[in-house]
Amino acid sequence: MELVDRVARMAAALKSLGLNADDRVAYLGQNSDRIVEFYFSAFWSGGVAVPLNYRWSVQENLYALNDSSPRFLFVDDGYIDQADTLTKSPIEKVIYVGDGDCPAGMISSEQLISSHEPIVDARRSGGDIAGIFYTGGTTGFPKGVMISHEAIWINAISNLSEKRTHRESVILHSAPMFHMAAFTSLISGTLVAATHIALKNFSAGDVLHTIGRYRVTQMFFVPTMLQSILEHPEFDRTDTSCIQMLSYGAAAISEKLLRSVIERIPTANLSQSYGQTELGPFATTLSPQDHLLDGRHPERLRSAGQTVAHAEVRVVDASRIERPVGEVGEIMVRGPGVMTGYWKLPEVTEKTLIDGWVMTGDAGYFDQFGYLYIVDRVKDMIVSGGENIYSAEVEKALNKHPNVKEAAVIGIPDDKWGEAVHAIVVVKDGEAVSKDDLIKHCREWIADYKCPKDISFREENLPLTSIGKVSKVELREPFWRDVDRSVN
Amino acid sequence: MELVDRVARMAAALKSLGLNADDRVAYLGQNSDRIVEFYFSAFWSGGVAVPLNYRWSVQENLYALNDSSPRFLFVDDGYIDQADTLTKSPIEKVIYVGDGDCPAGMISSEQLISSHEPIVDARRSGGDIAGIFYTGGTTGFPKGVMISHEAIWINAISNLSEKRTHRESVILHSAPMFHMAAFTSLISGTLVAATHIALKNFSAGDVLHTIGRYRVTQMFFVPTMLQSILEHPEFDRTDTSCIQMLSYGAAAISEKLLRSVIERIPTANLSQSYGQTELGPFATTLSPQDHLLDGRHPERLRSAGQTVAHAEVRVVDASRIERPVGEVGEIMVRGPGVMTGYWKLPEVTEKTLIDGWVMTGDAGYFDQFGYLYIVDRVKDMIVSGGENIYSAEVEKALNKHPNVKEAAVIGIPDDKWGEAVHAIVVVKDGEAVSKDDLIKHCREWIADYKCPKDISFREENLPLTSIGKVSKVELREPFWRDVDRSVN
Repeated sequence: MELVDRVARMAAALKSLGLNADDRVAYLGQNSDRIVEFYFSAFWSGGVAVPLNYRWSVQENLYALNDSSPRFLFVDDGYIDQADTLTKSPIEKVIYVGDGDCPAGMISSEQLISSHEPIVDARRSGGDIAGIFYTGGTTGFPKGVMISHEAIWINAISNLSEKRTHRESVILHSAPMFHMAAFTSLISGTLVAATHIALKNFSAGDVLHTIGRYRVTQMFFVPTMLQSILEHPEFDRTDTSCIQMLSYGAAAISEKLLRSVIERIPTANLSQSYGQTELGPFATTLSPQDHLLDGRHPERLRSAGQTVAHAEVRVVDASRIERPVGEVGEIMVRGPGVMTGYWKLPEVTEKTLIDGWVMTGDAGYFDQFGYLYIVDRVKDMIVSGGENIYSAEVEKALNKHPNVKEAAVIGIPDDKWGEAVHAIVVVKDGEAVSKDDLIKHCREWIADYKCPKDISFREENLPLTSIGKVSKVELREPFWRDVDRSVN
Repeated sequence: MELVDRVARMAAALKSLGLNADDRVAYLGQNSDRIVEFYFSAFWSGGVAVPLNYRWSVQENLYALNDSSPRFLFVDDGYIDQADTLTKSPIEKVIYVGDGDCPAGMISSEQLISSHEPIVDARRSGGDIAGIFYTGGTTGFPKGVMISHEAIWINAISNLSEKRTHRESVILHSAPMFHMAAFTSLISGTLVAATHIALKNFSAGDVLHTIGRYRVTQMFFVPTMLQSILEHPEFDRTDTSCIQMLSYGAAAISEKLLRSVIERIPTANLSQSYGQTELGPFATTLSPQDHLLDGRHPERLRSAGQTVAHAEVRVVDASRIERPVGEVGEIMVRGPGVMTGYWKLPEVTEKTLIDGWVMTGDAGYFDQFGYLYIVDRVKDMIVSGGENIYSAEVEKALNKHPNVKEAAVIGIPDDKWGEAVHAIVVVKDGEAVSKDDLIKHCREWIADYKCPKDISFREENLPLTSIGKVSKVELREPFWRDVDRSVN
C-alpha cells in the first residue's frame, strides 16, 4: 500500500499548496516511480496532469507550459537546469523529485509527502479531464489533447484484454511514460495490480538485464528497438522465456524481424496497435493470431489490424461518407475512448472532432475482413523511430533562419528509423548557410529527434500543387522511387 | 454479415409493428441463434429486451409479463403451449421463432425478416435501458433488474480480459442465455467477433460432442456440470485439448474436482466469478493463477477472488462503514456495471441501491490480500445447481396450500447440487397433507427447480429470533452440523 499512501499524501500537499479542482500540474522527467506518483497524485487531488516530453527543446516545453498554465511543475535530476527557463511561465512552484539534495528555490517532494497526512481521493470520473497530453501540430505549434477519466479508463480496460494483462504480469516500461501508449499500459496494469518496472529510457542492454532479473512478461516497443535487442551481445545469455507479450506500434514489423522474434523468443505473442494521442490512444489492433506465419494471410502483417472493442472506425471520403472495401479514404474514429478536444483550441477541435468522430488525418482502407491498412499520413507527418514528427514544426524552425527563403520537410526511407527527417531548402538570393549551421539552428527551437538528419539545397523554388501548396508528393518521389512503401 | 442483416430486418419489423423507443420485447425459449437475434434486434430497434426464464412456471412468467408489459413475445417450439396463458398479459403479438409451421394466431419470425428491409441501428447507449432481467425476490415476487447499455458493455469488455476471449475463441453456451452470465459472455464474444455455439440446454454428452466437433475453447459451468462431464463415458473418447478457459460460478470448486480437471483437461485455465444480476453481473474473479495448486494459498479456492477492474467492492457494517480485514459484513458494490434499479419498484431500489452502491445482501470478508470470502447469503437464498432460489418464493407457494399453517424453507447440504431446497412445514390443527401433494402443489406456482426436494413436518411452531423473525439459523443447524460450510 506504499504507493497509495504516498499518492494520498502528495495529493494533500498539492491541495495545501493551493491546488483547486481542474488546476494543472506538470511533470518533466524520465521514466521512474515518481512519474507514476505524479499521475496518481494529480488525479487524487482533483487536478489535471500535464506530462511534458523530455525530448522536446526548452522552447517547446515552455510553449506547452504557457499554453496549459499549470500551477506546479515536477522536475527530476535530469531537468533541473531547464527549470530557470521554464519558470518564465505561470508555474508557481517547482517540486523536485530527484534523488539528490533539493536545489534552492524548489520544494522537495519527499518533504511534501512526509509532512502531510493522506487525504481521500477526489474521485474524478466520467467527463472530468484527467490529463493534457501535448502532441506535435500540423500548425507548427504543439496542441494539448484533453483526455477524460472515462477515456483513460476505457482504453486501459480494453487494453487489458488486447495485451492479456493480469495480476501476475510484469510490465516493463522502456518507452517514455509521458506518451499515451505507456500511460495507458500503466493504468491497465494498475487496474489489475500487475507489477510495473520503469527504465529511465530505452537501451537494449538495460532491457535485457531487466528481463532476466525481474522476469518481465510484457513490454511495448517500436520495431527498431526490438531489432536492437535481438542484435545485442547479451541476448543469448538472457533467459527470455518469461516474455508472453511483445506489443509494438508506430511502424509495421517486417516479416524478417517477425521470423527472428518467433525463432529467438518463442514464448512471445505479438500485438500491434494503431492509434494517436487524440484517440486516447488505441483504435485498431493486430492480434497475436494475425502474427502467425501460417501462410494464410501474410498481407495482414502490413495492416494495422482490426477495430478494438471500445471504438468504431470508418474510412470516409471528404463528405464523411463511408468508402467501399479496398478504397482509400480518411480514417475516423468514434467511441468513449477518444479525446474531449484540444485545450484552448475550439476551432481546431471543431475541425477534428465532428459529431463525436475524430478525423485522424490518416489515410487508409479496410479489406473485406475488416483489417485496416494505413497508406498515408494526411497530416504530413514523419514517423521516425516511433516518434511522430510534424513537418510543419520542422519547417517553422528552418524558416526562422534569416537566410532561408523556403523550406519543405519530408520523411525519406531509413533502415534503422523507418523514416528519417529530410529538409529541402531554398536559400535567399545572395545569401548562404551550411547544413551543419542550419541543423544547429533547428536544435535551438525543436527537439533533437525532430531536426533534419540531412538537407538538400535547391536552386529553384519549391514545386507547387494545383492549389498552390508545396507538393510533398513530388519532393518525396525521387527518394521513395525504389522502395516498397509499406510504412504503417 | 448474415446476423447483422437478419437483426436489422427484424428490428425493422418490430418498428413496423409499432414498437417505440423503450418499449419492451420478451423472449421465452431455450438457447439458440434465435435468442441472439432477439437480443440484438430489441437493441437495434430501440427497445428493451425482457428474456424470460424458461424454467419458471407459467404463473411466474405471467407475473413477469404483467409487470414489464412487453408489446411482443417471442416463443420457440418448446413454449407454444404456454402462449395461451401468457397472452393474458399486455402482450399484443406473439412472434414464433420455432422450426415448424407457424401456429395459428402467431407471426412467423422468418416471414417478418424476409418481408422487411434492414434499418439502421437505433444507437442506444449510456444510461438507456437495454434489458430487464428477472430475478427471484426476497419479497416472494420476482423483481425486474434494469440494466443499461453502459452496464452491459462495461461488464462485457471487462469480461474479455478475465476470460481471455479473443477473435479465435469458440464459446460454448450450455447455461441458459436468459441469465446475465451467459448474456455477458455473448456480448463480450461478439465485441471481438468470436464464435458462439449454443446448446439448447446442458447435457454432458452434448457438451462433449460439441467440444470435439467445434473445438470449443471456452465455456461456463457450475461445478456440478463439470463433474458430470468428467464422469461421462464419452469423456475419454473426446479430444478436449482445445479447451483454454473453463469458467464457473455460483459455487466453490472442491480441491478434488479441481485436481481432476487439472489432470484430465490440462490445457484448461479456470476462472470463477462472483456476482448477481443486480451487479450486471460480475464483482470479483478468482483468476487462473489462483487455481494453481502450488500449495501457497490453498484457502483461496474457497474465496470468490479479487475485485474486477470495473467495480469497487466493500464489506461494511449496518451503517455502511467499512469492516476491517477478516471481519464479516455485508458486501456492497459500486461501478458503471451495476443495475439502474428495479423496474417499477422505487422503494426496493432505494433500499438496495444507495449512493451508487448495490447492497448485495451477501455477507463476506476480505483477507489481507484483497480476496473476498462469501460466508452467507443475507437475502436468505439457496444456491442449488447454480440457480439462486429465494426461500421467500418457495414459502409463499407452500403457504398458498389451505392446510399449511407455517412454512420455512432452507438449503441443506447436497452432494450433487451443493444445496437442496428443504421445507419445514407446520400443518394446521386437525388438517393433514402429504409430502407429495405439497410438492405437487408447489409446482403449480413455481418452477420445478425451486420446489422442495424434501419436507420435514413439525408439530410445534417455527422457532423465532429475538426480533420475532423465523430463525433460519436454528432450523439449518441440525443439517449443517457435520458439514464444512464452504459454500460460496
